[in-house]
Amino acid sequence: MASSATRSLQENEELLYLLRDELTTFVEQDEMELAAARIELFHPADQADALEALPESIRDRLLSHLGDEDIAEILDFLEDEPRTRFVSRLDNAKLARILVCVDEVVAADIVEQLPDERVNPVLSQLANREEVSELLSLPEDVVGRWMSPDVLSLQADWTVEEAFTYLRREKPDSGEHFYLYIVDEENILQGVVSIRNFITADPQVPLRDIMVTDVIRLDITTDQEQAAERIRHYGLLALPVVEENGELVGLLRADEVLNVQVEEATEDIYLQVGLQSDASPFSPVMQAIKVRVPWLIINLVIGFFSAFIVSLFESTIAKAALLASFMPIIAGHGGNAGSQTSTLVVRGLALNEIGRRDVVTVMRKEASFGLLYGLLAGALTSGLAYWMSHDRNLSGIVFLAMSGNVMLATLGGSMIPVLLKRMNVDPALASTVWLTTLTDWIGFLLLLGLASLYLKSGL
Amino acid sequence: MASSATRSLQENEELLYLLRDELTTFVEQDEMELAAARIELFHPADQADALEALPESIRDRLLSHLGDEDIAEILDFLEDEPRTRFVSRLDNAKLARILVCVDEVVAADIVEQLPDERVNPVLSQLANREEVSELLSLPEDVVGRWMSPDVLSLQADWTVEEAFTYLRREKPDSGEHFYLYIVDEENILQGVVSIRNFITADPQVPLRDIMVTDVIRLDITTDQEQAAERIRHYGLLALPVVEENGELVGLLRADEVLNVQVEEATEDIYLQVGLQSDASPFSPVMQAIKVRVPWLIINLVIGFFSAFIVSLFESTIAKAALLASFMPIIAGHGGNAGSQTSTLVVRGLALNEIGRRDVVTVMRKEASFGLLYGLLAGALTSGLAYWMSHDRNLSGIVFLAMSGNVMLATLGGSMIPVLLKRMNVDPALASTVWLTTLTDWIGFLLLLGLASLYLKSGL
Repeated sequence: MASSATRSLQENEELLYLLRDELTTFVEQDEMELAAARIELFHPADQADALEALPESIRDRLLSHLGDEDIAEILDFLEDEPRTRFVSRLDNAKLARILVCVDEVVAADIVEQLPDERVNPVLSQLANREEVSELLSLPEDVVGRWMSPDVLSLQADWTVEEAFTYLRREKPDSGEHFYLYIVDEENILQGVVSIRNFITADPQVPLRDIMVTDVIRLDITTDQEQAAERIRHYGLLALPVVEENGELVGLLRADEVLNVQVEEATEDIYLQVGLQSDASPFSPVMQAIKVRVPWLIINLVIGFFSAFIVSLFESTIAKAALLASFMPIIAGHGGNAGSQTSTLVVRGLALNEIGRRDVVTVMRKEASFGLLYGLLAGALTSGLAYWMSHDRNLSGIVFLAMSGNVMLATLGGSMIPVLLKRMNVDPALASTVWLTTLTDWIGFLLLLGLASLYLKSGL
Repeated sequence: MASSATRSLQENEELLYLLRDELTTFVEQDEMELAAARIELFHPADQADALEALPESIRDRLLSHLGDEDIAEILDFLEDEPRTRFVSRLDNAKLARILVCVDEVVAADIVEQLPDERVNPVLSQLANREEVSELLSLPEDVVGRWMSPDVLSLQADWTVEEAFTYLRREKPDSGEHFYLYIVDEENILQGVVSIRNFITADPQVPLRDIMVTDVIRLDITTDQEQAAERIRHYGLLALPVVEENGELVGLLRADEVLNVQVEEATEDIYLQVGLQSDASPFSPVMQAIKVRVPWLIINLVIGFFSAFIVSLFESTIAKAALLASFMPIIAGHGGNAGSQTSTLVVRGLALNEIGRRDVVTVMRKEASFGLLYGLLAGALTSGLAYWMSHDRNLSGIVFLAMSGNVMLATLGGSMIPVLLKRMNVDPALASTVWLTTLTDWIGFLLLLGLASLYLKSGL
């Protein structure tokens, strides 16, 4: 069999399909040894992928047949939902044996998702229960919950040679050591030595002389998104994580940040259409109805309100039915123009390109843009209205409604994200929804309201 | 001054504002030495941030006053647009001197954005012109354009001690060495030794004995998004990049992947509202009009078509003006329901959760969901219609139009992304646009078409 290394991504997908089929067959024929031997040939990340795609019963049977350490490795890569489900089938003793083999951050994640009555019984069986409990006391979206707690630290007054001797003797198993962090007796972070400088330095030099003291660091309670942006901004492979007093407690790796980013991106994209982050295209229909319908109903009710607004003008529409043709375009195009603006502003806020001082500049600029483009869009649409109706008054109303809605939409598109941010609501999530709802309502009100005023005035 | 290390993110933002103001003042008073000395206290990533926020004239004056190496460091972190603008002011000789100090991948990026007539004159002055030209021959979105070309490689038959001696003598400057790659005489990748194993190994052991031969690797032409997913999937800090023959040519670091991800996310989000990836909330109004109006006009024309569809039913609407109230909700709610589905499918395709084999399963499931939810949404909306009109026929038509549109929308939401992927169009970009346009049109046609048939039938 080709190793996972030399395969192309295409071949990898094929092999995982094959693995899935084989595993199903083995498990169904009760050949558990064969199934276990087969899956263990793969990287734990691929094992997790294959397991996720198996029917639940097969997955659970197979998982329970694997050794504690193998299961621990897989749990590290398994998605939340299948992980929670599998963990719920394990008794406390078995779960505790497995949790000892995963790192504390993963253990905390798993314990957090246990039903309340299981938390203490499981925790009490863990050798590192204090560390895990401490992680559990942190909010879910801070650096402390994503860092690697095993970090390699050395003393500043050791020579390079002494450090080597220490490393060779201790053989610390904290993954790949790309940076060596230097601490004092109280474990307070003093500096960092890159592996390059360490390996190439004269053995007699003390670490103090080759360390950089200006260490970019993260606080254990830093928000994960800000931490991700910091790692990316400075182009580093990892940042040390410290407690408030400067004590070194872990490090955040760039590859963990990738996971944070993908998870946050999925969460953001999902939330915009009312999906929970554990939604899956494979979940059963009844479950889909349970999780997806509430958001749809909220939208339906918002839609009912739009219908109500339009219905206020029923008699106006009956007199000038062509108005109905311009309702969708005026409402929708306000949404188009406003979304361009809100997208620019939301992204600018997220990437720290728009600071607090720049808000007014951006708003003023968007207002000018909205004014100019509003006039253009109004002129084009009223041209269409005139061509369709040969009615100057109708096309005048269309002009005013379209220009007005586009102008208000660009202004709203620059203001709503800023307001939401001030209210501590993530602008990326709520801006578009609010904006397009408002542009719909304002568009209808402008078009139908102006038409109704005109008709009433009897001109 | 607090170093960039110990500052909180908040303090960092404040300091950058301060720096911006100071730099502006210094440059305006022609105190270029002071300005240069001030900015050099910061990390190049922060220098780039501060420069990006300065007015163009100030930025250019200040940049031209810095040394070649300082400029090179900043260029590595500068956004595309200010970088291109600044580079356009440098003469070929100066630019070539700067490009020698940046790594080849960055040099290739900069040369690629030069006007055609400058490419060869600049390239010819570079010592590493062959490597840069080779990179330039690769498409923009493959691993080769993002990798670090300086990769540390050792021979398998060296002992650990010999490797150390080599490293101490050569002092290779390829960043942080977190993995040591082992190659044969032809520079073909043979294996990898983690720094942990290297540092802690017995000095007399040959590298062959401590290397892992099952190396997960990337091809130089692998698509950057797939490469990013691979690094994330396996949770690695870097992957080696090889030519087709297995020759080691570079490595892709997880922090570079973060940049790819952020850039691709921005690109995707922008493209959905017709923005180029270099769009900025700060660009002047006339430029905003030039880049943003074309997409808006396309949407306006699509809107014209919606207006045309509705206008076909003018006489129907004149007879039953309440129909107009249900146009927005039926069209829009189809869009809501369909976007939930298309979001799940698009994300599932992007994260490789939905493979080719799963497409039919997902479609069947979404069709069932659409059927059930369509009936519910239809019933609720027709209830509203009956309450507003006490007209059974109207509410029957509303029921049919709403259920039908929701059913077709969920089906479309699962099919459109798959079809786009087959046509090699990124489903993330085009799915929602097509879907909501279609649900608008289908919604109008169903509601108004059914009403018009009913009125014509004279029942």
